[in-house]
Amino acid sequence: MSTIFNVDFIGTVAGLLTTVAFFPQVIKIWQSKCADDISYEMFVIFSIGVALWGVYGWEIHALPVIVTNLVTLFLAVLIITLKFVFRKKNS
Amino acid sequence: MSTIFNVDFIGTVAGLLTTVAFFPQVIKIWQSKCADDISYEMFVIFSIGVALWGVYGWEIHALPVIVTNLVTLFLAVLIITLKFVFRKKNS
Repeated sequence: MSTIFNVDFIGTVAGLLTTVAFFPQVIKIWQSKCADDISYEMFVIFSIGVALWGVYGWEIHALPVIVTNLVTLFLAVLIITLKFVFRKKNS
Repeated sequence: MSTIFNVDFIGTVAGLLTTVAFFPQVIKIWQSKCADDISYEMFVIFSIGVALWGVYGWEIHALPVIVTNLVTLFLAVLIITLKFVFRKKNS
């Protein structure tokens, strides 16, 4: 029982970190108004993957999987959008 | 049975996409020799999260979870390393 708790705890912390990680990237782009070094391909592929993780969470009825992946998807799409917006402004 | 297959398939594709996504970012940095717009904080926090996902996979004996997260961890640490290397060269 205590092992299960530990495993779930590790999974929860892991999920929170891989979601929270995208906030500093959003803030950095917002402050510098530049995202030229960010790869569109990375964030587009990653967004599709995260959306599928959300579908996976929906199918297995795992609310934490759905919520963390929805937040990550929002942040990844926001990064793509900011890169596009600031590229247009700079050119 | 067919639903389980579909769910596992969605999870597998999701896992592959969120891992493969990091390759174009590595290639972009390698080609441009610049990663100034990349957030150290994002990739450090993300790496810790991915490492914990690997531990989680180890604990639940899920080889695909271990392997995909080890590859993602390698790519994320590589991006951090390249950012550091090219920052030193440019300054």
